[in-house]
Amino acid sequence: MRIAALRGRETFEVEEAPVPSIRPDEVLVRVAVSGVCASELEPWLTGPPAGEVRYPGHEVSGVVAEIGAEVTAPAVGDRVGVWVTERGFAEYVAVPAAYCFPAGDGPLDEALAEPIACSVNAVEAAGARLGDDVVVIGAGFMGNLVQRLAALRGPRHLIVADTRADALERAARLGATRTVDVTKESLPDIVRSLTGGLGADITFECTGTQGALTMCGDTTRMSGTIALVGFHQGADRTIPLAYWNWMAFTIVNAHFRDLAVIMRGMSAGMRLLAGGVLSMDGLVSHRFPLEEINAAFATLREKPDGFVKAVVTFPDV
Amino acid sequence: MRIAALRGRETFEVEEAPVPSIRPDEVLVRVAVSGVCASELEPWLTGPPAGEVRYPGHEVSGVVAEIGAEVTAPAVGDRVGVWVTERGFAEYVAVPAAYCFPAGDGPLDEALAEPIACSVNAVEAAGARLGDDVVVIGAGFMGNLVQRLAALRGPRHLIVADTRADALERAARLGATRTVDVTKESLPDIVRSLTGGLGADITFECTGTQGALTMCGDTTRMSGTIALVGFHQGADRTIPLAYWNWMAFTIVNAHFRDLAVIMRGMSAGMRLLAGGVLSMDGLVSHRFPLEEINAAFATLREKPDGFVKAVVTFPDV
Amino acid sequence: MRIAALRGRETFEVEEAPVPSIRPDEVLVRVAVSGVCASELEPWLTGPPAGEVRYPGHEVSGVVAEIGAEVTAPAVGDRVGVWVTERGFAEYVAVPAAYCFPAGDGPLDEALAEPIACSVNAVEAAGARLGDDVVVIGAGFMGNLVQRLAALRGPRHLIVADTRADALERAARLGATRTVDVTKESLPDIVRSLTGGLGADITFECTGTQGALTMCGDTTRMSGTIALVGFHQGADRTIPLAYWNWMAFTIVNAHFRDLAVIMRGMSAGMRLLAGGVLSMDGLVSHRFPLEEINAAFATLREKPDGFVKAVVTFPDV
Amino acid sequence: MRIAALRGRETFEVEEAPVPSIRPDEVLVRVAVSGVCASELEPWLTGPPAGEVRYPGHEVSGVVAEIGAEVTAPAVGDRVGVWVTERGFAEYVAVPAAYCFPAGDGPLDEALAEPIACSVNAVEAAGARLGDDVVVIGAGFMGNLVQRLAALRGPRHLIVADTRADALERAARLGATRTVDVTKESLPDIVRSLTGGLGADITFECTGTQGALTMCGDTTRMSGTIALVGFHQGADRTIPLAYWNWMAFTIVNAHFRDLAVIMRGMSAGMRLLAGGVLSMDGLVSHRFPLEEINAAFATLREKPDGFVKAVVTFPDV
Repeated sequence: MRIAALRGRETFEVEEAPVPSIRPDEVLVRVAVSGVCASELEPWLTGPPAGEVRYPGHEVSGVVAEIGAEVTAPAVGDRVGVWVTERGFAEYVAVPAAYCFPAGDGPLDEALAEPIACSVNAVEAAGARLGDDVVVIGAGFMGNLVQRLAALRGPRHLIVADTRADALERAARLGATRTVDVTKESLPDIVRSLTGGLGADITFECTGTQGALTMCGDTTRMSGTIALVGFHQGADRTIPLAYWNWMAFTIVNAHFRDLAVIMRGMSAGMRLLAGGVLSMDGLVSHRFPLEEINAAFATLREKPDGFVKAVVTFPDV
Repeated sequence: MRIAALRGRETFEVEEAPVPSIRPDEVLVRVAVSGVCASELEPWLTGPPAGEVRYPGHEVSGVVAEIGAEVTAPAVGDRVGVWVTERGFAEYVAVPAAYCFPAGDGPLDEALAEPIACSVNAVEAAGARLGDDVVVIGAGFMGNLVQRLAALRGPRHLIVADTRADALERAARLGATRTVDVTKESLPDIVRSLTGGLGADITFECTGTQGALTMCGDTTRMSGTIALVGFHQGADRTIPLAYWNWMAFTIVNAHFRDLAVIMRGMSAGMRLLAGGVLSMDGLVSHRFPLEEINAAFATLREKPDGFVKAVVTFPDV
Repeated sequence: MRIAALRGRETFEVEEAPVPSIRPDEVLVRVAVSGVCASELEPWLTGPPAGEVRYPGHEVSGVVAEIGAEVTAPAVGDRVGVWVTERGFAEYVAVPAAYCFPAGDGPLDEALAEPIACSVNAVEAAGARLGDDVVVIGAGFMGNLVQRLAALRGPRHLIVADTRADALERAARLGATRTVDVTKESLPDIVRSLTGGLGADITFECTGTQGALTMCGDTTRMSGTIALVGFHQGADRTIPLAYWNWMAFTIVNAHFRDLAVIMRGMSAGMRLLAGGVLSMDGLVSHRFPLEEINAAFATLREKPDGFVKAVVTFPDV
Repeated sequence: MRIAALRGRETFEVEEAPVPSIRPDEVLVRVAVSGVCASELEPWLTGPPAGEVRYPGHEVSGVVAEIGAEVTAPAVGDRVGVWVTERGFAEYVAVPAAYCFPAGDGPLDEALAEPIACSVNAVEAAGARLGDDVVVIGAGFMGNLVQRLAALRGPRHLIVADTRADALERAARLGATRTVDVTKESLPDIVRSLTGGLGADITFECTGTQGALTMCGDTTRMSGTIALVGFHQGADRTIPLAYWNWMAFTIVNAHFRDLAVIMRGMSAGMRLLAGGVLSMDGLVSHRFPLEEINAAFATLREKPDGFVKAVVTFPDV
């Protein structure tokens, strides 16, 4: 089979590898889509250490091609979203049956189980309650997902902020009750005016930038919650912690390493997607065959107008 | 002012009483609507002990007529849902400003803050999570409210059961993904078939009857949640507790006496209603003037076809 | 190896069976102790259906005798408490490495991981908070364990009730702030007098009897918690549910089937035991060799004076 | 009565003021002790804006001298810890009856309800569970309180770090399972060695310094909890957020502004103190009469050897 190996700066090479063998409790999945995650951009830009090779790829869905001797579900032919931690930019992955979740009948090339699971867990961890006023800073792929899932939790206001007109238009189409172009308007002012001066119950930070992080402190009410969904790579971040202490903010780190939590998010996310409750419509904007995987990553780096999410697809699945 | 006094079996008498005086932290509310609660039916049927009198009425909304010296909000003329524990079948109630919540611009005669608060708290206490499969047994007023609020929490299946065709039609209009007439179909069978044999994550018992209570054990998955919303008046209830133990059900008693919890439910409920997220459309089926309050209670007792909720209204407010 | 097979009424037969083979992710454990659980008494009394055989035994600790090819921990010779669901009355059990927890250096014949895990989870699920007033009804083995673990959560009063003088003496030695012989004193009266008339924040029902269950409603404060630890085998139970509704009790079913929850309880319990925080001193009152397993069960049935817990031990381990 | 007024840099002036009048729902408390809080140091050092005056003091206990017409409890003569937000450095405070909690029979000059409440809430918010490994960085007054309360939650290891030998000796006396002088030993190394390489389940940061904050990331296990108890006044703080994201730390801001939460902490803390479960023995190290309040603050600034907590006392109460 073919698999993409990261061998240098901005350099995947597609090479041949044996189809993985499976253990008795595993299944072999023919990959339909493998999403390009923002957290993988930096490793692609810098490349692995000299002489080393990496096999990234962890946002995978596909069709079960073979099952281990002890597997009772899923069955061959089932369409599944799966949890793997690497080697996902390949034609096949081996994965424990317990890490496969029914993907329903919709388009597989949007059934990105892992980022959906992260977003489900982010919204649950933030503890969104009925009638809450919610702010989402960042209307990229993760911000859009968080917005859609937060909308399913019964908010009153759902305010989405970004700097990009196309992203805000998309957020509005997805149901934001108010969108804010932070290059033109003051997000804290708007939030205060919509919430009787209090601020939002929850602010989701979905950009991974210092500026958005700082802004969370100005949009969230006393005793409210700031949920850190963006991955804050690069330099250390600065926080006006005396003020955050004073405001009694709850700070939720919406990154998860506990397997039971991840599996719960996978299960819930795939139930929502397969059940037609969550739509991914419009969130996968750029598709590339495996041979063009470097172009997929370059597109993520450049974020052209209309960009939301790049994926590698295997169209024959 | 006029107030309804319960003085005998099935006997309210409307009498004159002074308009209540208010303390510095209270407001005087001109009552627009006062709902007839199912928990008040039994006291009406039996009447108070001989020689005693009762002044029930706790589902009240109206317009602020006067405010105490220390009150900064609400203001005179504000439309509010309020929390009182008695004396609500009257033209005026005195209520602490802290127990008043903005009712928005919709029809006041549906803005029944207290049962909405109970239902909000029931759904929150049951811990509904994204993608859950939810069963609601009982499609009366409380069941309808619970259904609508559970729908706001992102369920996959939302299955509603009752014995009355009109109630099930209403549940379907309100968005149930499946309705079940338990006189014709097996609810447990249907739940199992929709949930891959597992059972529901949450079953809300909204009837207050032994039969529905027992059925909860057959519709809920292992380690799932049974939420007791109905008020189980009358005889003791029987529970197959060995089986419930074995199934590791979480049992949520969705009745609340903690003031902070009640206030949280009031606030969230009125935010949802005033914000247009929760609609009460169609849930108040029968309206009576104060002079016909005994007819209002008789209607609750008889539950004519199409009955959902009886209220006493003061149309001039 | 030898294993006890349940083949009739009150009839275990000890027979020879092959030592279990282990999978790559499993270990073989030489059993040191296998506890007799109250939930196994009824099956022993009635025996399996004619012609069938059962292999109970699920409270096991021992020493690792062999490890599968993929196991990194535990190591051969490690002393472990393990989670198995059957076949524990035997010289060896095969168990996934992930279900083994270090048992520390104390006596293995008291390191009963499974009931400790249940008790840990019961106390955590009941949500005991600093300064709570806690009642434990039932001072048998599970009640003693719950008492000891509740004592670790910072209660104010820790009141233990039973009908047996020896059990109450033991509870007092274990640190109960008050013991109550319910054949001589009124538990509700004492609880009220100690709590300013309010009732306990939490009542743990640890007997599995109707009488104790009913009493919980009279010892627990409004909005307090009733935790059902006892296994309510036999007839359906009767609950004055209108009153329980009215009192807004939280009802915790302290029986667990979720694997992640069970494993969390195993891990925490063995950490407490191995770390010397939890003592089992005095809780294993009766020890039997495998050949006398029927006597062990008979002792559980008869509960002689001083009885707390019967176990089957393999003294050479 | 006498009250301390902050009128300039490091300058309280003790002046005469009328005894406060009380409302019907309030009580008048004769102050026995008023603690000097670290958060008040900075305002004392800088003084209020020119021409303005401040009346700090919020850690108060005393004896009820008078009760309002509607008050049913406490009674005159009751010893209480109270919640006030200012004007506590005075002979009398007026306080709602609902904000008074029985202080028991112990020494009133140690019954500092407010910091005890903060510490109770910090430990509860951090979600300490049975068997957790806990690190407390900072063995000053708040660190000592957090340590004592965390010890009541059933930890396995309870490791306390500081730079001061006298503070570490006190922590050891209070029951730390391990103390670490961070000027001589590596706290992260010690934590890892005690926890099988994993790190602590919870780290409490009780210093308010950048260095301790940074260290939390090196002492806490993946998916563990960092609780920010110290008040991080002064410059913004820097956090290696990419690493904290990656490690999936839960970040608890143990500062509270929600009235119900504060009251819950007051109630639980006073129950523990009055019930003899929590001892304040040795935690109040320096006592000053009101006339020497500036010396009390100077002592806090200088932290002489053996310093833990300075209070203003009114010895005749």
